[in-house]
Amino acid sequence: MTRPEKGIVALCGGVGGAKLAYGLNRLLGERLTVVVNTGDDFDHLGLAISPDLDTVVYTLGELADEERGWGRAGESWNFMEALAGLSGETWFRLGDCDLALHVLRSRALRAGVSLTEFTEELSSRVKIPARILPMTDHPFATIVVTTAGRLPFQRYFVELQARPEVQRIEFDNHGGGAATAAVLDAIAAAEGIIVCPSNPYLSIDPILAVPGIASALEASDAPIVAVSPLVGGQAVKGPTAKIMNELGVATNCASIVKHYPFLDGLVIDSVDEAEAPQIDIPVHVTGTVMRSKDDRIGLAAECLKFLGHFKS
Amino acid sequence: MTRPEKGIVALCGGVGGAKLAYGLNRLLGERLTVVVNTGDDFDHLGLAISPDLDTVVYTLGELADEERGWGRAGESWNFMEALAGLSGETWFRLGDCDLALHVLRSRALRAGVSLTEFTEELSSRVKIPARILPMTDHPFATIVVTTAGRLPFQRYFVELQARPEVQRIEFDNHGGGAATAAVLDAIAAAEGIIVCPSNPYLSIDPILAVPGIASALEASDAPIVAVSPLVGGQAVKGPTAKIMNELGVATNCASIVKHYPFLDGLVIDSVDEAEAPQIDIPVHVTGTVMRSKDDRIGLAAECLKFLGHFKS
Repeated sequence: MTRPEKGIVALCGGVGGAKLAYGLNRLLGERLTVVVNTGDDFDHLGLAISPDLDTVVYTLGELADEERGWGRAGESWNFMEALAGLSGETWFRLGDCDLALHVLRSRALRAGVSLTEFTEELSSRVKIPARILPMTDHPFATIVVTTAGRLPFQRYFVELQARPEVQRIEFDNHGGGAATAAVLDAIAAAEGIIVCPSNPYLSIDPILAVPGIASALEASDAPIVAVSPLVGGQAVKGPTAKIMNELGVATNCASIVKHYPFLDGLVIDSVDEAEAPQIDIPVHVTGTVMRSKDDRIGLAAECLKFLGHFKS
Repeated sequence: MTRPEKGIVALCGGVGGAKLAYGLNRLLGERLTVVVNTGDDFDHLGLAISPDLDTVVYTLGELADEERGWGRAGESWNFMEALAGLSGETWFRLGDCDLALHVLRSRALRAGVSLTEFTEELSSRVKIPARILPMTDHPFATIVVTTAGRLPFQRYFVELQARPEVQRIEFDNHGGGAATAAVLDAIAAAEGIIVCPSNPYLSIDPILAVPGIASALEASDAPIVAVSPLVGGQAVKGPTAKIMNELGVATNCASIVKHYPFLDGLVIDSVDEAEAPQIDIPVHVTGTVMRSKDDRIGLAAECLKFLGHFKS
């Protein structure tokens, strides 16, 4: 596929981010590039699992289980049951349909295909016009340092259900993982950049920690806006507010701006309108909770409108 | 588990052989060692598939789909459907439950566990008292040379449903694969050896072609009997008679004796009783068609009784 030269780049984690990416994909199609966190990726049972990439692909490909928030619609769990019968590990649940993707990806990566190439091919098979890019093709691990110890991401998030108190978050790019040319080129060519309402610590910070990405954002002339992941001091889903509390950070929109020093503007929810005066960059107030697919498209449109304000 | 020093060894392929192995396991328990063909093993979708080992484990572990003849009872096929949706290969069907075994084995082999060790651990997890041994721990491929070309086993057997005319069968042990110490020790310690009613060309010949196994059989003092895979000139299941016809071999019990020159005796079906005078080794006539689990135990008992006749 020949991609347009200019476009919009979205930085994105799993569920919440994927919803906004869905709306952007519906509005922008091929003009959208979604750069996805792979700090949660891990090898499980010998399979290469990329939770956030999968959520984005399933969501944009209209395959996602919207109710559960992860995995595929109409999923079944017979593999897991058989695995339990053979005394296999069952703390991380892999659905029968979901397995097809993990098996295909594991084989491709083992054959030397890059995660970027595999994801591009996969997106085309499920007919997603947007370009979905892993933040890096190299191993990169998010490690959550908690009062219960130093935990690999999935152990913290899935097995321990984000219960341990977070002290800090570390990233390990195994001494090598840099940004891909595809990601750097997309950022360089962007007309606008959107930070999705994903968890800043667990989903967006890993992207920013990939060598080359933060400096590409700094070097870009394009306006950068974020959608605050907080609504009324709470995250719509996930442990964002819990982690902010544990790290001693106020759970308000001003903290989000402080967290992302490169922002040109912030989109906040209508319920937080009173916070606007405390925010020292341009603010766009709108409904940010995405209950329906129309909500996602609506918020995407608001983000694009807001980005338009920064055009010289 | 401490195994008895002496025991019975069965050489076995998939379905037909696994049924007799089931009966033997019920009668002998830990005293039985089943040496299983791995010439059909292949890597599919990056997973290590061992069709005959799986059939034996599922059958002896009471997990098999008795009707279909392969795979697990109560199987579902959602993985295959999702794979088709992602444009994956679907000619070789992997059930959702079956996948659990392939995923566990693939991971174990990649971690350096031998197929023998993995199969032993698996057998203990599904509570099979008999010892199930792959014929070798090394790559070993059965190649079917047909009028349609040189075909890897599964392409011939599954994809082309054994339709191409067979000219000859070749084995490729990749220049290395020899018999395991476990197989050689079991044969050396055997009180009796049974060749199951599996396909002689596709299931038993690969076992005999593993360097070390044929000479171990020759060196053994134990009586060796086979159960003829032919009943009234036909195989109960599978292409045995078709292949014999294509190779110009008469489809009768005498051909089986000629094929296995190391035999001390042959078990033939009652319907073939009239062939007995043409067979120049001791013959035991009984019902060999195993419709029920009782049939399997009954035939196993007949084989053991027959072996007993050879005791000095």
